[in-house]
Order: sequence, then structure tokens, then C-alpha cells
Amino acid sequence: MVVVLRRDVPQEKIAPLIRWLEDKSLSVRVFQGQEQCVLGLIGDTAKVDVEMIKSLDIVESVAAMSDPFKASNRQMHPEDSVINITSPDQLEHAIGGGKFALIAGPCSVESREQLTGVAKAVKAAGANFLRGGAFKPRSSPYDFQGLGEEGIDLLLEAKKATGLPIVTELMEVHSLHLFEEVDVIQVGARNTQNYDLLRELGKVPNTILLKRGLAGTIKELLMSAEYIMAGGNENVILCERGIRTYESAYTRNTLDLSAVPVLKTLTHLPVVVDPSHGTGRADLVPSMAFAAAAAGADGLMIEVHNDPKQALCDGAQSLTPDQFSETAAKIFKIREALGL
Amino acid sequence: MVVVLRRDVPQEKIAPLIRWLEDKSLSVRVFQGQEQCVLGLIGDTAKVDVEMIKSLDIVESVAAMSDPFKASNRQMHPEDSVINITSPDQLEHAIGGGKFALIAGPCSVESREQLTGVAKAVKAAGANFLRGGAFKPRSSPYDFQGLGEEGIDLLLEAKKATGLPIVTELMEVHSLHLFEEVDVIQVGARNTQNYDLLRELGKVPNTILLKRGLAGTIKELLMSAEYIMAGGNENVILCERGIRTYESAYTRNTLDLSAVPVLKTLTHLPVVVDPSHGTGRADLVPSMAFAAAAAGADGLMIEVHNDPKQALCDGAQSLTPDQFSETAAKIFKIREALGL
Amino acid sequence: MVVVLRRDVPQEKIAPLIRWLEDKSLSVRVFQGQEQCVLGLIGDTAKVDVEMIKSLDIVESVAAMSDPFKASNRQMHPEDSVINITSPDQLEHAIGGGKFALIAGPCSVESREQLTGVAKAVKAAGANFLRGGAFKPRSSPYDFQGLGEEGIDLLLEAKKATGLPIVTELMEVHSLHLFEEVDVIQVGARNTQNYDLLRELGKVPNTILLKRGLAGTIKELLMSAEYIMAGGNENVILCERGIRTYESAYTRNTLDLSAVPVLKTLTHLPVVVDPSHGTGRADLVPSMAFAAAAAGADGLMIEVHNDPKQALCDGAQSLTPDQFSETAAKIFKIREALGL
Amino acid sequence: MVVVLRRDVPQEKIAPLIRWLEDKSLSVRVFQGQEQCVLGLIGDTAKVDVEMIKSLDIVESVAAMSDPFKASNRQMHPEDSVINITSPDQLEHAIGGGKFALIAGPCSVESREQLTGVAKAVKAAGANFLRGGAFKPRSSPYDFQGLGEEGIDLLLEAKKATGLPIVTELMEVHSLHLFEEVDVIQVGARNTQNYDLLRELGKVPNTILLKRGLAGTIKELLMSAEYIMAGGNENVILCERGIRTYESAYTRNTLDLSAVPVLKTLTHLPVVVDPSHGTGRADLVPSMAFAAAAAGADGLMIEVHNDPKQALCDGAQSLTPDQFSETAAKIFKIREALGL
Repeated sequence: MVVVLRRDVPQEKIAPLIRWLEDKSLSVRVFQGQEQCVLGLIGDTAKVDVEMIKSLDIVESVAAMSDPFKASNRQMHPEDSVINITSPDQLEHAIGGGKFALIAGPCSVESREQLTGVAKAVKAAGANFLRGGAFKPRSSPYDFQGLGEEGIDLLLEAKKATGLPIVTELMEVHSLHLFEEVDVIQVGARNTQNYDLLRELGKVPNTILLKRGLAGTIKELLMSAEYIMAGGNENVILCERGIRTYESAYTRNTLDLSAVPVLKTLTHLPVVVDPSHGTGRADLVPSMAFAAAAAGADGLMIEVHNDPKQALCDGAQSLTPDQFSETAAKIFKIREALGL
Repeated sequence: MVVVLRRDVPQEKIAPLIRWLEDKSLSVRVFQGQEQCVLGLIGDTAKVDVEMIKSLDIVESVAAMSDPFKASNRQMHPEDSVINITSPDQLEHAIGGGKFALIAGPCSVESREQLTGVAKAVKAAGANFLRGGAFKPRSSPYDFQGLGEEGIDLLLEAKKATGLPIVTELMEVHSLHLFEEVDVIQVGARNTQNYDLLRELGKVPNTILLKRGLAGTIKELLMSAEYIMAGGNENVILCERGIRTYESAYTRNTLDLSAVPVLKTLTHLPVVVDPSHGTGRADLVPSMAFAAAAAGADGLMIEVHNDPKQALCDGAQSLTPDQFSETAAKIFKIREALGL
Repeated sequence: MVVVLRRDVPQEKIAPLIRWLEDKSLSVRVFQGQEQCVLGLIGDTAKVDVEMIKSLDIVESVAAMSDPFKASNRQMHPEDSVINITSPDQLEHAIGGGKFALIAGPCSVESREQLTGVAKAVKAAGANFLRGGAFKPRSSPYDFQGLGEEGIDLLLEAKKATGLPIVTELMEVHSLHLFEEVDVIQVGARNTQNYDLLRELGKVPNTILLKRGLAGTIKELLMSAEYIMAGGNENVILCERGIRTYESAYTRNTLDLSAVPVLKTLTHLPVVVDPSHGTGRADLVPSMAFAAAAAGADGLMIEVHNDPKQALCDGAQSLTPDQFSETAAKIFKIREALGL
Repeated sequence: MVVVLRRDVPQEKIAPLIRWLEDKSLSVRVFQGQEQCVLGLIGDTAKVDVEMIKSLDIVESVAAMSDPFKASNRQMHPEDSVINITSPDQLEHAIGGGKFALIAGPCSVESREQLTGVAKAVKAAGANFLRGGAFKPRSSPYDFQGLGEEGIDLLLEAKKATGLPIVTELMEVHSLHLFEEVDVIQVGARNTQNYDLLRELGKVPNTILLKRGLAGTIKELLMSAEYIMAGGNENVILCERGIRTYESAYTRNTLDLSAVPVLKTLTHLPVVVDPSHGTGRADLVPSMAFAAAAAGADGLMIEVHNDPKQALCDGAQSLTPDQFSETAAKIFKIREALGL
């Protein structure tokens, strides 16, 4: 249930209402917009006397909320969420509400040279986040599983060297202690409905980048965000990364760009697009990156490798630093053309 | 099989080779580019002596062609096809090779007032083609099936009034005589593999706009183009209009924008995108139109209705003329930003 | 709308009601069951005075019908439809309502020897229908398109020789005159929504076997049946033949056997299953044929070829006559075990 | 790589070969069939001298293995795996190689009365395993999440009371200690690619029932089994439970029964089918259970509830004990008819 308060109601009048609602075993989420305050009620709202609330002089309107996703729902938080990430380089690293995140880096961290080389190159091209995999979810137990802890260390070094906040994937709860200084923890497509992992991530201060499942619905993505937010962590970024369809002759997945405007109507959380996994082909990444930017995405996550042919993982979908630089320049031009 | 000739080989040296190949029961397609000529051989190439052809002094290289689509294959026709449509208004109405088609109009033709009103509005906004349905494929035999012949007449009137070439759907071979003055005949998604219809359209001079099947693959779309081209009609435009996936809670179809760059690598034919059917929701059409333009589409087909709420068909996905005008302006800006 | 009459109402009381309803521009379908009569009303039922009809002493109940498929709807025709096909051999060739159709034969008719050889073998194994393709829908315009008219002649010869009614595919309206003596005309998966073809088949006396579209929904299949039935042809058999899904590594299509019981609840029309196209692999055909029989299918359509490795079409999914014979024996045992 | 030894080679000749292979850092899996022994080599087989091995007098043949799934591969283990579960009632509870598992019980454990009532009823009807959910994966964090530890206790009580081995789902590694006496630990469709969980299950002595992912491929299912088997746990049962397709109007999922014969050719592991989740509709469960049995499944898992309308979870897909009893009887008849 959503209670919209009248404009300019003073805080001292709001607090008693919140207390009264909490006494009814409801969880109350407060959205304080620039002019108006919205209260979102989660729990068994059946026992709430709607007419009574409507009749209060500080209340403008009361609406039911039929969607099963609550905390992530735009009804409860009419303005875009903006997630700010502080970083050693004192530059702005924000996402959402008009702030654009250009996240780039190699599929997996392979060595110090590789990582810092790529990091500097993508920063020069305009990237404001560095990505890289330390723990890799591989479909075969016999394949290279990533550098693990050493990979995290190399990412933190690259962060220090470039000032870029880092994004890297967590695969299992018991590695969580290694991610303390990781700015954005990624949940991969195979773990989108690993509720245990999501619950734990609801308790940490890091920002979470949550990928849509391999063949996940939009509703499932939002419900997974809900698992994180229900635990108290509001800093969730959603990521479209291609879905599984019958068309697999030319692309690894089918990038569902309509998910961008659909999600922007349903939720206040930022939405980024991963055209690298979304297509699986480096030659398609620029076009789809442009398309995602034009569709209104709050960010892009693009794989860049200094030597794609020698990459230990996903080389076929990685851009070279030069290709990335050219792509980034056009992305910024599109945003400018659209007044974003 | 593709035979690339050396630069600047004179015509009189090419003709005997073509005759010799045709004597082997092969169909020979000649692509005369600005600098080089390419011969595409269709038929049983097993009996051709490749080494002998390679050794000819006018031949640069010979390559097998493994794709089942031949005439539409970019290997056979390395440059983009450009389709020109002459029209009463003497303005340029071309598509492909950098020429952009903005096709707009109502889902179905309802009346003279509706159609000419919309036609003038979309032309003013920058559209260079008018679309409108006269024969409508409806899933129920009991539903409104379109105005039929009267609808075609109204479209021709609107063409005369505005100078815009028209695009309208043909559903069955025996109505073909009504389409003589129709500039672009549309084949709908339910008829993409109606081979009988495609074969007939191979014999007409009109341009054909071929929609991808409801759940059609990219290869199937190209094979259907092949049915038309094998009959001698080279003027085929391909149209991505959304595919059927498991995600149907928020959109009617899943618009597969990666089909645009994929098709551009596989074929020389122009590719347009229909975000109206691709999403089924007017509020998503602008974002997806921007995305399609940014992805490099050669055109867009957008439903516009003067009064979407009263539309006899597909009102939920139609833009108003004002919304279209705003959308069109941004589409042009994106193309400019990308230097297209 | 469905009007269920009381038991044992005499015909002379029913006729005036029907006339009265038809005067309201409604199409009235009469289902005369063993004990009860049901009237199905198609058209604009909004102007019908439901309360008045309910109050008639011959009426037991009146129900709205929300499904868009009307004539095929089980509500209108509570008992299974049984389609009888008379044949030179004087044996029973029926399908539906407990009568099982075992349809077998080669993918495409190749020669007199091939066809009659296979026909005799499948008859000996228990098949009661012979299938064979004369006109073949091929994805490439350059592939073998079937023997055409000659193929039809060979089928008619085989029919005479074995007494088996024949099933063969029609691809386009203008070949229809060749199908006069064809017992069951098949509409292939690419033509399921070729409404023009369906309308024409609504006017012929032949039985129609309508395949589900390549990626067709159950509702679309019923709506296509509706196109045929709206024209007056009630003899429609529905055929599940596998749908397009993301899983294509091991099977050509995903055979949707739950469509069998789902369809049996929605419609009175017989439902057959094609495990040959449904899997694309001969080694899977027996298991899936058993499964389809156990799921309650009214028939099976199985490809049988005397020499699968040399087949001009779809050899990989064809059984040999011996394999078919073994499979057929087990199918009959399963039906017996289930008391079908 | 697979090394097939000649018949009747004595153990003392095999052991040195195995040691020699292990010295090359290969993991050697030994399959001792009734007549022949097969060695399966996992690891970097590039350095193995194939010709040398072929020349050994105890070796019949050597074959490469291109599939990425190794331990689960039928090439390595040509006979069906049979998994035996000892139980208090001294009756046979085995699955695979002709032994059929009929697993039945409520979606979630609700109370002692409910569970033991259902357990006794399903046992009387022929079930040889009891299923019930204690930990429930729910798409909303605000929904009933199962009785948890108490649920496990009630299952163990029901096991004691009826002698039936129990099957119940584990959702997260840290609950594993509660599952010591659970005979079969289920991995749900959302956790099929939770590699961390799978690795842990590779170390326990319990049998694992691994469900196919929500939209998982057959290959992914086998690779997930590989994660468990690579850890040393060979007792893995695979479960088809319906996949996500575009057809969701009438069924919750599309039950892919062709997965049964496909899996039987690829792997030696037993394959069971869950028609309850596979359809989501109780009225379709019997037909699909019959179909699965006829397709050759090694078992069925069916939801049974004493009062489906009051079930806390998935009531719409649960059979009553009476319906289950009737269904079970027909399942046994089908197996008998097929000589299984």
C-alpha cells in the first residue's frame, strides 16, 4: 500500500503516523522527494483502515499496490534512485537519475599487466567503473575457475592505480569477506534466484549489480532485487544481459532492450545493459551499446581485453581498447543528442 | 559459389565467362560494384572446375558459399542495396545504403478523414512513407478484417494528396491485382513462410517489405527473401517486428534489435524495424525507435493514429501525431550524432 | 453463448427456438448428444435477452463463452467428435471418440515401388491411414519440392492397392482441384495461419488435418480450426508436431505432449501427434509415440521409409517398416492397458 | 577419453594400467560391467599416447569423448546406474536399470497429521518414496518459506512410520547438517547452476535428485550433475520438470518428455519426471504421468495433498490420495504392457 502525503507536511506530523503504522506490524518505507513524501507499507495491509488514513489531513491519497515487488517499486519511490560511489580519484562515480555508468574491463582478471593496462585504457576512453572477474562461474567443473582471491587483490590494486571503482562477481556466500573493498558486487545470471546469496547481500554496505537470469523474466529480476532490499540494502543496480530464446544461430543470447524502458516504468532502480554477454560477438557490441544508450539505459557494461584472441575466457565478445574508445565516444554523442 | 573478378576487367571479357557458366545450367548473378564485379553462381556447382576458373586471368578469387541464402547474401553483393521509389512529390524516397525510411501511418485504414489527416501529420514530422492496413490478418474469423479494396483506394488517394509512397499488406495471391499502384507490398508475419505468396511476389515490379515470422529465425527470414528474389524481384526490404519468447508479461513480443547488425553482415538488403508490433505498447515505442536507429536500422515503421483510444485495431501501440513528431525529431538527431 | 436444453425435449419444440435465434442474425450450431441437445450461438450475442431464454421451459441453462474459439469449443459440443472416412477396403477408418488413427508413410512420395511397398508394410503393422508428401514445403527455393501432381496420382494408386485412406499436404489454394479424392488434406506448420488457405478448406468436403504452427500457441491452433469450421467444414483433426524452444541441441523441436490433454479439455476435435517432426530423430520416435498414446492422443502420424538413409527428405526421422511394426504393436498394448 | 578393455581381462592386469594413467595426472573412472571393463579418463588427455594404449593386448578400443560431461556420460558407463536406498521397512527402494521410483507427497510439509496421512495413502497406492518440502524457494521474500528444520523432523518421523525413504529440497549450504538422514536431497530448478551448492553435494553420501533449470538445457543439466560427480558423489538422479517456453496460457511450464529418451542415450544416470511442476494443473498430471512412464522414465515425482484446496503451496497441481491411487495403478499397467 502506498500513502502519498500532501506537499510541505512537516516531519513532526509524519513521524507519529509512521509509528502508528509500525505498531500494526507493518514495515514502512519512507520516500522523501523534493516536494512530497511517500510512505510505502509492506506486510499484511489487510488490517489497515484505509478510509481512516485517507481522512487524515496530512494524507493526499492512498493506493493499493498489486505488484509483488514492493521496495523496488516506482510507486513507492517516484524519483529515480541515484547510487553514489566514493572513490580515491575524487571524481564522480554515480549511476541513475541521469548519471551514466560506463563499466568496462576484461571478462576475467588474468594478470597485473593485463588488468592495469586495460583499466588505464578504458578510463582514458571515458569509463568510470572497472569490471573484471576473479571468481568465474564455469559450466564445466574442469574449466579455469578464475584467479580467485588473487584476482580480487589485482582489482584493488588497479582501483588504487586508476581511481576507478571496481565491479566483480561473487559466487558464494563464504567468499563474501574478500569483497569488503569491492565497490559493486555482481550477482551473475546463474545466481539470480540463489535466494540465500541474495539474503546475505541484503546485509552488506556494498552496491549490488544484479543480472537478469539466463532465461529470467522481468518480474523475477525485480523479485530478486526485493530479496536484497528486504534485508536493508537499497543499493541495487539491475542488469539486462540477454535472454535465452530459440534464436541462437547468430547470437549467444537475445538482448532484450525493451526491458530497459519497461523496467524504468516499474522500478526506481538504475538499469544497465551488458551487450557483451547479450550478443556474444564483439562485432555486434558497438551497435547494441548504441541501441542500449538510446533506449535510455543508465549504464553499460562492456568487456574489453588487450588481446581478445588470447583471452582465457569470452575472447570472442571482447572489444580491444581502441574499439572501446571509438564506441564510448559515440555512446556519449547519442546521450547528448537525446539530451540525456 | 562466388567469383570475384579483378578490378577494371572490361565487360567484353566478362560476358563469355557468364555464358560459359550458364551453359553449365548455373544461374549467374552479376553484381557490378563501383570498382569490382562479383559473379554469384546458384545451382549445382559441384560440376564446376574451380581450379580452372581460379586460373583465369580476369579472376581474383573464388569462394564457396555455405549459406543456404544466395541472392540475398552479402558475399554476392558486397555493397548495400538501395531501393528507390519514385513518387508524385518528386522527393527522394529511398531505403538502404545510408538512405533512411521513416514509414508511418495507422494500423488499419478506417476512413478518408482519418487517413489523410494522419498522412499529412506524419509527412510534416518527416515521414517519407505512409503505411496503412486495408486487408488485416485477424486471429479470429469473426473480427473486423479491414476495409479491403476500399482501403487500397483510400491509400492511393492519400498518396496522391501527400506525395508519400504507400506500404500496405497483401494477404493472398488473388488480391494481387489490386496492388498494382502500391509502392511497397507488405508480407505479414503470419505469411513469412507462405511460399506460394512469396513466389508470386517474385514476379511483380513492386518493392516487398517482408516481415520476420512470429517466431521466425533470421535464417528463415533470409530464405523467404530468397523465394522472392529467386523469381526475379530484387526489391526486398526485411523487417524485424519482435519475436515470440517466454517474456510476455510486459510486452507483446520481444524486439530483437541484434537482428539489425546481424542481418547487415549477412545480407545487402535494407533492414527496417517495427517497434509498434515489436512492443505492443505506445509508451515503449519512442525508446525502441531510438534504439533501432542507433543500432543502424535502414528504416522504422511506426503506427500513428489520430485517436488511438478509438482505433479499430492495435490502438494500444499507436502514437498520436504529436508523439510521433517528437519521436521523429529525436530519431534524426541520433542518426546525425552517429554520422549516418 | 451456449444454451443447454433439457433432456428429451422433442425436435418440434427446438426448431422454433433456433429460427427465433437465427432471426437475431446469430449463427446457431446444434449439437445433438445422446441425451441432450446443446445450441451454440455465434455472433453478436449482446442483443440476446438471456433471462428470457433461461425462462423457457425447454432450456436447462445458458452460459456465456469467453473463449474466442467457438465452433471448435467443447462447451458447444460436449462429446468428442468422431470423423469417419469411407474407404475401398470397407474397414473402419475413423478418428476421435475412442477410434484411433495410426497414420504412417514416407515423408515424401518418391516412386510407385517405394510408396506401395511402404503402404503394404504399414498396413500389415496396423496402420489405418497412409501418409505421403506430394507437395513439399521446403525452406529453400532451390531444393526438391516434391513430385507434385504425379505424387498425388501415386498416392491414389496406393490407396486403391491397399484400401488405406490417404493423408497429404496442400500448400496453395490453386492446387486444390488435385485433392478431390484425397481423404485427409494436411495443412502444414508454415501454413497454420494462412487464413486464405484455411477459408478455402472451409468449403470442401475433405477432412482437414491441421498442424500446429512452428511456434504456434494452442489458442492459435484452435483459432485456425475456427477459420475452417466457420466456412462449414466440421471435419478438422488437430496435430501437435513439436514447438520451437531454446532446446535444439538434441531435438529438432520440443514435442509438447501436454497439448494433448489440454486440447481434449478445450475442444471436441480429435488430436493426433507427429513424433517424427516432433523430435527429428528416428531413435526417439518410438518412445515419444508411446508417450503420446499414453497421454490420450486420438492418433499418431509416423514417418516410415523403406530405406531411410536414401530418403530424399527427412530420412533421419523415418522408421524402417520393421521398426514401425514393433512400435505399432506396443502402441496398441498401451491403449489396451489404459482401457482406451 | 574412453578405453574399452577386452573381455575377461583379470584385475591384476588392469591395475598397472590405471596406475600408469594416473601418473599422467589423469583421473581414471573404472566401470566394471558384467563382462567388460571400461576406463574413463578425465583431464588433459592430450599428452596420452593413444596408439601405445591401443597396442596393449588388454585393450579392445580407445575413443575420444567430445561431450563436456564426462562422469555422467554413458560412454564411460555403458550400463544404467542403479541407485539403492536402504530403508527401515526392508523393502526395495531402488531407481534405475529397470527399477522404478514412484515418489509422492505434499508440495510442502504443513503438519504431522497432513504428512503421515498422505504418506500412508501414497504408500498404499504403490509409492516407494515420500517427498515433501521443508525449505521452500519462494519468489517473494514475504511469502511462507516452509517449516524448515521442523519440516525435516516431520519427514523423518513419517519415514519411520511408513518405512518410505524421503526426498526433500536443500536450498543452501549451511542447512546441510540438517539433511544427514535425508535419503534423497533435492536440488531445485532455481539452484541447478548454483555451483557452490553442487560442489558441497559432491562430498556427501546422500543421493541427489537434481532438477533441470527453469529454462535449462539438457547439456546444462548434465554439466550440473558433473559438478556433483566430480566431487565423488555418484548417486545422482536427474529430473525433468518442465521448461519455460512461449506457451504459458494453459500450462505453467512445457513438460519436455523427449528429454527422457534423449538423456537415456547420453547418460547412465536415472531420469525421473515431475508432471506436477511440469504442468501446474492437477487435471493434466495423470495423462502426463502416463506419458512419462511410457517414454521410459525411471521414476515419477507427483504432488499429493489430502486437501488440495487448502494447501499452503501449489494446491492447484496436487492430486488427492484417491486420484493418485488411480493414477499409480495405470502407471504400473503401462510399464507392464511395455515389458518394463
